Amino acid sequence: MDIKIKYAKDHVGQSVTISGWMYNRRGSGKIYFLQLRDGTGFIQGIVTESDGGMESMQMAESLTMESSVKVTGKINAHPKKENVFELIVESIEPIQVCKEEYPISKKEHGPEFLLDNRHLWLRSKKQWAIQRVRNTVINATYEYLNDNDFIKIDSPILTPNACEGTTELFEIDYFEEEKAYLSQSGQLYIEAAIMSHGRVFDFGPVFRAEKSKTRRHLTEFWMMDAEMAFADHEKNMEIQEGLVCHIVQKVLEKNRQELEILERDIEALEKVKAPFIRKTHAEVVKELQEMGSDIQPNDDLGADDETILTKKYDKPIFVEKYPAEVKAFYMKRDPKNPSVALCSDLLAPEGYGEVIGGSQREENYEVLMERIKEHDLDPSVFDWYLDLRKYGSVPHSGFGYGLERITGWMCGTHHIRETIPFPRMINRLKP
Amino acid sequence: MDIKIKYAKDHVGQSVTISGWMYNRRGSGKIYFLQLRDGTGFIQGIVTESDGGMESMQMAESLTMESSVKVTGKINAHPKKENVFELIVESIEPIQVCKEEYPISKKEHGPEFLLDNRHLWLRSKKQWAIQRVRNTVINATYEYLNDNDFIKIDSPILTPNACEGTTELFEIDYFEEEKAYLSQSGQLYIEAAIMSHGRVFDFGPVFRAEKSKTRRHLTEFWMMDAEMAFADHEKNMEIQEGLVCHIVQKVLEKNRQELEILERDIEALEKVKAPFIRKTHAEVVKELQEMGSDIQPNDDLGADDETILTKKYDKPIFVEKYPAEVKAFYMKRDPKNPSVALCSDLLAPEGYGEVIGGSQREENYEVLMERIKEHDLDPSVFDWYLDLRKYGSVPHSGFGYGLERITGWMCGTHHIRETIPFPRMINRLKP
Repeated sequence: MDIKIKYAKDHVGQSVTISGWMYNRRGSGKIYFLQLRDGTGFIQGIVTESDGGMESMQMAESLTMESSVKVTGKINAHPKKENVFELIVESIEPIQVCKEEYPISKKEHGPEFLLDNRHLWLRSKKQWAIQRVRNTVINATYEYLNDNDFIKIDSPILTPNACEGTTELFEIDYFEEEKAYLSQSGQLYIEAAIMSHGRVFDFGPVFRAEKSKTRRHLTEFWMMDAEMAFADHEKNMEIQEGLVCHIVQKVLEKNRQELEILERDIEALEKVKAPFIRKTHAEVVKELQEMGSDIQPNDDLGADDETILTKKYDKPIFVEKYPAEVKAFYMKRDPKNPSVALCSDLLAPEGYGEVIGGSQREENYEVLMERIKEHDLDPSVFDWYLDLRKYGSVPHSGFGYGLERITGWMCGTHHIRETIPFPRMINRLKP
Repeated sequence: MDIKIKYAKDHVGQSVTISGWMYNRRGSGKIYFLQLRDGTGFIQGIVTESDGGMESMQMAESLTMESSVKVTGKINAHPKKENVFELIVESIEPIQVCKEEYPISKKEHGPEFLLDNRHLWLRSKKQWAIQRVRNTVINATYEYLNDNDFIKIDSPILTPNACEGTTELFEIDYFEEEKAYLSQSGQLYIEAAIMSHGRVFDFGPVFRAEKSKTRRHLTEFWMMDAEMAFADHEKNMEIQEGLVCHIVQKVLEKNRQELEILERDIEALEKVKAPFIRKTHAEVVKELQEMGSDIQPNDDLGADDETILTKKYDKPIFVEKYPAEVKAFYMKRDPKNPSVALCSDLLAPEGYGEVIGGSQREENYEVLMERIKEHDLDPSVFDWYLDLRKYGSVPHSGFGYGLERITGWMCGTHHIRETIPFPRMINRLKP
């Protein structure tokens, strides 16, 4: 019977066939231990002459790393380790034996070499685990948003204008000498859709042409934007908190094995529970200054500020109410203190820093028009966006998360380039 | 108590508040019927002086179309229609009353006008229904693929080379005078990931710079590609059939109201059940010729061919085993008849035509290299793709579906531009 490795526990004592890859081998002469994988999990195949015959022994010896195989044998529960199973090999059928040596060995490789071989590096155990966690983050996001009455409204990638200047945008020649730009956020578009659907989200790739080379930047990455009619700044943070808790819970529930492979501190993730810490930007500036930062009252938090602040706490921190003048034109100002915006950044603990940014949006036509002018933006670019304030405008709020940053936090990876299958950076467009 | 309209049935006899939009109004003088929507559904608010007082009557009279409102009243079950509820209005609190007349009226508008006002057109009942069906198609796809052990592997949008020529690709200036192209399919990339995960899919926007203006073309659309290790052509069709049946079932289950709004022939959808019809390309050519088509044995099916063929049957049709020479280089040929490829197109009934294309992939290094040369392609562009055949190659298959085409079929819409929130076409990049 053909089975997937993850179902091995249901077949103890039975003879089964597993189709997959041999990613490693130990032993020699009298016994071979084949490390097998099929995408759903890992299992050790034990080859001896008494169980597998001479033919299996010869095959086990001749197999090269990453060769594809069909291995038939009996599933055994590991004598000492709980929930670990072995395959007592009866026969081995090679599918394709690698003739050339597999480029990625157990020795240390530099990051450029691994990225050049991303199409193969994806097979490494840690990379496998990261993509599985990413998959859980994606599914948990859909689940939570569906359960909270959001529907998916895909925002366009090809856009005619830039929200806030074109310096960070990739430009394309569209038809008939028109220029198009790759979207860096779908927010403005999904704001239109809430007047039809109430609560909506998008979830797709976005692009930034920044010449930034930090460990937290990619030129192409995945972003989820959510937008809600009749939701204020408080409600916005409540939904973000619920979403993040749901994601963490699902990762802990579905990816124990992956987190172990990644040597992730699981206790740190278990501490991520509501209520999150809430501080105003003004409070945070004071706290950072006391910790030695040279941050000024009108500064955004720098990467170092985020790191030292979030290492101090074991829960995510909402930093809310930034000075309005350093924030985007569409953010609503606090009626109680118009110098600050009704916005928040959610910072992940352990030094991971910003994973979500959100705000209540300005819903008044005249005020929004004024903000556009204050920011030296061209109102004609925002004609349709302004229309939303003319026809049935409502209080509304939204937020956006970066999938790679959340996945990196869950996995405990230092550099977010490992959290996307095929990273794109300033000097990297291949494979 | 604040409620969403879709939960009205749970509050019969109670006084509730609904926040939303008034999209239409009937009546005058003694009674007003306000057509209200909140994104989750539609309800009629009945305003009389006896229930709502003079103030509500005056407010009902002064409200303009698409004004946003909070309406408080008692939920009544409709005296005659099952599952229909009304709101006996007690008070109306306007949020924003439109001062300018809403541009989209009940009179007929041309398609260009509606597309120019897409940010508002999205609110129309049919457009609301289409996006809700699209959302169901998306969620049903995730469900089915998750249940069948697929994980999501996002393929990149920015790619260094074209699979098959650059004429249909949008070109971008990447950094340092490099050129990048917007992806038209993630297939090759996700083939790499099956060696790590077994079964994977991507689901994101793809781009075609075709100068095509038909009702079935967009320059930006959403595609789902699925790929499976150890799956042959037969298994490939089986999974496609299962996926399509699941999607149709979920649309029928979750979107009755939407299908009614769209005046969709529900019986036609109910007939979409496994097993689908299977015909070889050669059989179909003969059948089409008998129906009067001038299709030749080595021709792909034209749009008209697809229409007349699929109007003849009430189930989807797999057209399999096309002449290899007209198909892509990566398709495996039939060992029993090497002049045909192990591929299939799935055609939707009722004239909708192609919604999925799939094939078993050539897994042998030497054969694939030969195909690349036969197709006059540059092997160096495919170096990493060829690597997959060097290191643990396995038989594998996959397919891709166009989200807008499937959504159009489900909804019964003639032109797929209505099935995507913000369509991009040769002459359309706004809003």
